[in-house]
Amino acid sequence: MSATQFDLEALKDVLYSAVLSDVLDDFGLTRQALRPFVRPLDDSLKMIGFARTGLFANTYEVRDGENPYEIEIALIDDLKPNDVAVLGCDGPTMRIAPWGELLTTASRKRGAVGCVTDGLVRDVRHIRDLGFPVFHGGIGPLDTRGRGRMIARDVTIECGGVTVRSGDIVFGDVDGVVVIPQDIAGKVIDAALKKVTSENKTREELENGLLLGEVYAKYGVL
Amino acid sequence: MSATQFDLEALKDVLYSAVLSDVLDDFGLTRQALRPFVRPLDDSLKMIGFARTGLFANTYEVRDGENPYEIEIALIDDLKPNDVAVLGCDGPTMRIAPWGELLTTASRKRGAVGCVTDGLVRDVRHIRDLGFPVFHGGIGPLDTRGRGRMIARDVTIECGGVTVRSGDIVFGDVDGVVVIPQDIAGKVIDAALKKVTSENKTREELENGLLLGEVYAKYGVL
Amino acid sequence: MSATQFDLEALKDVLYSAVLSDVLDDFGLTRQALRPFVRPLDDSLKMIGFARTGLFANTYEVRDGENPYEIEIALIDDLKPNDVAVLGCDGPTMRIAPWGELLTTASRKRGAVGCVTDGLVRDVRHIRDLGFPVFHGGIGPLDTRGRGRMIARDVTIECGGVTVRSGDIVFGDVDGVVVIPQDIAGKVIDAALKKVTSENKTREELENGLLLGEVYAKYGVL
Amino acid sequence: MSATQFDLEALKDVLYSAVLSDVLDDFGLTRQALRPFVRPLDDSLKMIGFARTGLFANTYEVRDGENPYEIEIALIDDLKPNDVAVLGCDGPTMRIAPWGELLTTASRKRGAVGCVTDGLVRDVRHIRDLGFPVFHGGIGPLDTRGRGRMIARDVTIECGGVTVRSGDIVFGDVDGVVVIPQDIAGKVIDAALKKVTSENKTREELENGLLLGEVYAKYGVL
Amino acid sequence: MSATQFDLEALKDVLYSAVLSDVLDDFGLTRQALRPFVRPLDDSLKMIGFARTGLFANTYEVRDGENPYEIEIALIDDLKPNDVAVLGCDGPTMRIAPWGELLTTASRKRGAVGCVTDGLVRDVRHIRDLGFPVFHGGIGPLDTRGRGRMIARDVTIECGGVTVRSGDIVFGDVDGVVVIPQDIAGKVIDAALKKVTSENKTREELENGLLLGEVYAKYGVL
Amino acid sequence: MSATQFDLEALKDVLYSAVLSDVLDDFGLTRQALRPFVRPLDDSLKMIGFARTGLFANTYEVRDGENPYEIEIALIDDLKPNDVAVLGCDGPTMRIAPWGELLTTASRKRGAVGCVTDGLVRDVRHIRDLGFPVFHGGIGPLDTRGRGRMIARDVTIECGGVTVRSGDIVFGDVDGVVVIPQDIAGKVIDAALKKVTSENKTREELENGLLLGEVYAKYGVL
Repeated sequence: MSATQFDLEALKDVLYSAVLSDVLDDFGLTRQALRPFVRPLDDSLKMIGFARTGLFANTYEVRDGENPYEIEIALIDDLKPNDVAVLGCDGPTMRIAPWGELLTTASRKRGAVGCVTDGLVRDVRHIRDLGFPVFHGGIGPLDTRGRGRMIARDVTIECGGVTVRSGDIVFGDVDGVVVIPQDIAGKVIDAALKKVTSENKTREELENGLLLGEVYAKYGVL
Repeated sequence: MSATQFDLEALKDVLYSAVLSDVLDDFGLTRQALRPFVRPLDDSLKMIGFARTGLFANTYEVRDGENPYEIEIALIDDLKPNDVAVLGCDGPTMRIAPWGELLTTASRKRGAVGCVTDGLVRDVRHIRDLGFPVFHGGIGPLDTRGRGRMIARDVTIECGGVTVRSGDIVFGDVDGVVVIPQDIAGKVIDAALKKVTSENKTREELENGLLLGEVYAKYGVL
Repeated sequence: MSATQFDLEALKDVLYSAVLSDVLDDFGLTRQALRPFVRPLDDSLKMIGFARTGLFANTYEVRDGENPYEIEIALIDDLKPNDVAVLGCDGPTMRIAPWGELLTTASRKRGAVGCVTDGLVRDVRHIRDLGFPVFHGGIGPLDTRGRGRMIARDVTIECGGVTVRSGDIVFGDVDGVVVIPQDIAGKVIDAALKKVTSENKTREELENGLLLGEVYAKYGVL
Repeated sequence: MSATQFDLEALKDVLYSAVLSDVLDDFGLTRQALRPFVRPLDDSLKMIGFARTGLFANTYEVRDGENPYEIEIALIDDLKPNDVAVLGCDGPTMRIAPWGELLTTASRKRGAVGCVTDGLVRDVRHIRDLGFPVFHGGIGPLDTRGRGRMIARDVTIECGGVTVRSGDIVFGDVDGVVVIPQDIAGKVIDAALKKVTSENKTREELENGLLLGEVYAKYGVL
Repeated sequence: MSATQFDLEALKDVLYSAVLSDVLDDFGLTRQALRPFVRPLDDSLKMIGFARTGLFANTYEVRDGENPYEIEIALIDDLKPNDVAVLGCDGPTMRIAPWGELLTTASRKRGAVGCVTDGLVRDVRHIRDLGFPVFHGGIGPLDTRGRGRMIARDVTIECGGVTVRSGDIVFGDVDGVVVIPQDIAGKVIDAALKKVTSENKTREELENGLLLGEVYAKYGVL
Repeated sequence: MSATQFDLEALKDVLYSAVLSDVLDDFGLTRQALRPFVRPLDDSLKMIGFARTGLFANTYEVRDGENPYEIEIALIDDLKPNDVAVLGCDGPTMRIAPWGELLTTASRKRGAVGCVTDGLVRDVRHIRDLGFPVFHGGIGPLDTRGRGRMIARDVTIECGGVTVRSGDIVFGDVDGVVVIPQDIAGKVIDAALKKVTSENKTREELENGLLLGEVYAKYGVL
C-alpha cells in the first residue's frame, strides 16, 4: 500500500474517527481506537497518514559514548511524505516527552503529516503555532535523555493500547485516533465513505423531529 | 417537583456549582459533586435541569435479533423539556461512548437541556457547534454496540461517584457538576441564592485590600 | 536568595520549562518537573516566582470552635511580592479544591504571582478572568472545610511528586511546572539562558532542511 | 456504649464479617466494609473491639526538636482493654508503615485487641508470632519518621473508605473488616445473631441437595 | 466438545497453567491468561473444567418485587458435572462478592468443579474447608444485593481481561488461570502434553549444571 | 566491594529489612525500600546478596532469527556465588513473568542466592519447593517471548521504584526488600547491627509494661 493509492487530503476532509471506528467494528476489528487518554494537541486539526513506528523503553542512565537518540534520529530522518510517527511508550505510565519542537520541525521538512504517542509531548506552544497535528498521552517538559530510549523502529508496537505496524493508516481528529491495518485499508475506507452518506440522512431525519425509535425502525442503525 | 416550580433560566445565570456545593455541605450532603474527571465539553456553557437516569453495563457481544439500543432509545424519546440525560457507566473505567451527535440532536428536539455521563462522548465537534451542554468522562470514538448497553432507565444510578435519581436537579458549569436531591431542592436553592450575595461582599472586601484573616474574623466564613 | 537578585519579568519572557528541565538534568537534578497531571488553568500564561509552601492533610470533620482555615489564612496574608503559593495535597488522589477565587484575590493584593497545587481548583472562570496563573491537579467545586486542612506552612512539601521548600524558584508554562532549588538557582538560570541561544541555532538548522543526524553530529545535542 | 455491654469473646466466636455486612445493609448502612485491599496479617485470627482512631498525614521532613510520634504515643498509651487502634492513612496510596512490633507490644500491654490500618505494617513475623490481629493495607519496612505523622486522635477518620469514630465496634476476620456505628451496635448484633441461625438452615438445605431456586422460594433470601 | 472427550482428572495432574499459556502463544492466542490480580483462594488446588459464564453489572438499588438473584440462581442450578462458573465483573474495580459459601455448596451438589471471578469472594474459610477451587479478584464481605446483578448467563464475557464463552476449557493453578477456546482445545492439549515432556528434559539438563546458553543452543527453547 | 568482605550468612540471620530501612533513613537515603507490591514468594525466607541487574522492555513481536532471551541468558550464566538477579520491569504495570523455574534452577547452579523483580514470576510451586528466595511483583503464567525482552544487563535500573546498580547489597525478608548502595554498605551494616541491639532493649522495656511515652523519653527513639 503506498501513499499514491489514496487521495489523503480528500479523505481527511470527509472522514472522521467515529465513522472509521464503527466500520472497523463491522469488520470485527474492535481494538483499533487508542484509549481516550491520548488527546489531540489542537482540537481543530485532523490527521491521516501512514504509520512509522518507534518503540520506547525506560532507561535510568546515559552510558559513556552512547548516543541515546540514535534510532530515533534514524526514524525521523527516514520519514517519507504522508508518514505519521507513532511512538509507543506504554502510556499512560510514561514519565517522559519523546516528542517536541525539534522533532516536529525535522519531521515536517521530510513531509511527515503528524505524530501519535502515548508518551508525553513538550514545546507545545511552538508545535501549535506550526499547525502540526500531534496526538499525545500528556504534556510535560522532561527530555528522554537518561529516562528512555527508542530501542527499535518499524517494528510492531502498541500505542494507547492498539497494535500498530509501519504502513498502517492512522487517522486522528478531536474524537481520538483510529488505526486501520494496511491489508484491509481499502475496504474499510470504502465502507466508511458509504456510512458517512447514510449518517447524514439519519441526522437530517432527527433534525426534522423524528423519534430515535422511528429512525432506528426505518434504517436499522443509529 | 416539576419544571414549573423554578425559573431555571434565571437560576442558571446567578448560581454556580461551587456555591451549590458549599450549601449542600451545610445541609450535611457532602457527596453531591461528581468526581473531577467529569468535565464540560465546552467550558463556557452552564446547565441546569432535571435528571433522567440511564444505567449502562459492559457487554461483549451483540446477540442475534437483539436491539442493543432499545432502552436507550426509549429514554431519549421520553425526555421532557428541561430534562438532563444522566448516564451512569461506572467511569472512569468505561471504554465506550454512550453519547454522541445523534442522541444530542434527538434530545434537543425533545427539549432536553444537557447530558451528564461518566462514560465517553464522541462527535464532539458537532456537539460543540450545537451549543448543547455535555459533561463527560472522556472523549473517544467507540460506539456502545457490542461493548455496552443501557440495562435500565429512571432507576437509581451512580454517575461520577454521586447517587442520582430521576427528578434530581443537576447543575453544571466549568467547575464541575453538582446533584441536588429533589426533596431538598427548594431549600438548597434558597440558601444558595443568599450565599451568592454574601460572597459578593467578601470578594469586594478582599479587592479593597483587607487581609483574609480580617475578612474571616468579620464574616466567619471564607 | 531574594526577589531582587533576578529580573523575574525578563526571565519569564525568555525562559521556558523545557529548557530549565534540561539544564536541571545536566546538574543531576532529575526530579524537578511536576508530574503531568498538574496543568495550567490558562495555557497562555507563564509564571515565575518564589515558592511559599503549604502542606494539606485530609480531614473528615470540623470540630467545634475550630477554624479550619487558620494556617492557610496566615500563609496567604503573609505572601510577599513575587511569591507563588505552592500547596501540597498528595495529588492526584486529593478530592478537594484548596484554591479558588477568594484566595486568588487576596494573594494578588499581596503581590503574589501565581499558585501551584496538586489538589483541585474552583471558581476557574473568575480566576481566568483575572489572568492569575494557577497550575492545578484538576478542577472541582468542593471546599476544603470538613475535607482537608493546611497543617503546616513554609515546611518541606511534595507537590506533584517534586520536593519544594519556601524560597525555591517555581517556573510554569504550558509545558508544565519546574522547581529550581534556591541554592543552585543562579547557576541553573545562567546555564538555561545559554541553552536558549543554542537551541535557537539548532531549530534554524532544522528549518533549513538539515537532517536530525547532521545537527546532532554538529552540535552533539538535540 | 462500654465494653461491658457485650460479651465480646462470645460474639467473636459466633459472628463473621459477611453476616454483619448483610445486616448493616438491611439497616441501610451500605458503606461499612473496608475496601478489599485491607487484609488480615493472619487469616486464622478474628477480632472484635472498640475503635480508637488516629488520623495520619504525609510529611516530608522532621523539624528540629519535634517529636513526630507525640500524638501516636498518647493514643497507644491511652488504649483501654478491648480497644482496637484504627489508623487512617488514606490508603491505598500511603507509602509508610504506621504499625509495627513496638506498637503491638505496647498495645497488648494496655489490653488492646487489634489494629486496623489502610497504611502499611512492618515487623510482621514478630506480630504473627504474638498472635495479635492486624488488618493492614500492605506490608513494608518504611518507618513513619520524616514521612508521616499522626495529626489527631479520637477524631472522625476514614480507613479503607469507611468512616470510623472512636467507640464504634470493629469486627475483622478472613473476609475483611466491618465497622458498626456505636449508636446502632446493639440492634445490629441482635439481628446478626438471628441471621447466623437462619443461614445455618439454608446451608443445610443446600447440602441436602435442594436447588438454589427452591431454597430462595422457601426462605426468600440467599 | 463435551466433558467425555477429555480425561479431565488425568489432565489436571499433568498439565499446568504456564505450559498451556506457552502453547496458546504458539497458536497465536496471546490473550488467554487472566490478569494476575485474579488469584487462587487455595494455592494447593488445581482446577480444570468447562466454562459456564455469567455477566454482572453494577446496580444501586433493589426494586420492589425484584429477585436480584434470578439469573444467578438459574445458572447455578443448571451447572453440569465438570462445569466451572466464570463470573465476569469488570474487575479489578468491582466492589462486591458474587461468590460465597452458599453458591459453593449448591455448585458442588451439581458436580461443578470450580469458580473463576474477577469480582470478590466471601465466606473464604468455609470454601477453603470444602476444598473447592475458587480463583478470585479479591476477598470482601459485601453481598451483591443492591450493588450488582447477573444480567445474562451463557453469553460472551470478559473475566480478568480474557474473553470467555460457555464451553471453553478453564484451567487454574497457583500460577493463575488460562482459558482455552473450545474449538481449538484438542490441539492445544495435545501440544501441551508434548511440551511437558520436553520441559522435563530441559530442567534435568540445567540441574546437571549445563548453562542456559548451552540448553538454548541445544533445544532452541527455554 | 566483594562477597568476602561480609559474612553474609551471619548478617542474614541477625538483620531484618525494617532496621536496615531505618538506618538508611538516618544516612539520608530514604528511597531504598521497594514499593510494597513487591512481595516474597515464601514469607519464611530471608535473602542477602549482591545485585546483578537486568533491564526489561515491553515488546510486541518476535522477529525472525532473533533470540529474545540472549541478554537474559548471558546474565544468568554469568551469575557468581552470592549474587541476586534484580530484574527491572517498570512494575506494577508489567504483564509478563521474566522469572520462572528454569532460571531458578540455572541460577542456583551458579551459586546465586535469590531474585528480585517488579515483574511477575511463574512456576511458583517448583520455586517454593526449591526454597529459593524470590521477591516479585505478582504471579502469572505468561512467558516473556513476544511480550518483553531484557535489553541491557549490569546497568542502572529501577526496580519497585528503587534505583539499583550491580554490586549493591539487596536484603529481603517478609517485610520487603531494601537496597544498600555498595559505597556505603559497610557503614550501614555496622549501624544496623548496633540498632538491632538497642531495639531489643526497647522491646524488653515495653514487654515489662513501660508506656511508649516512657520508653521514648528514656531512649529518644521508637
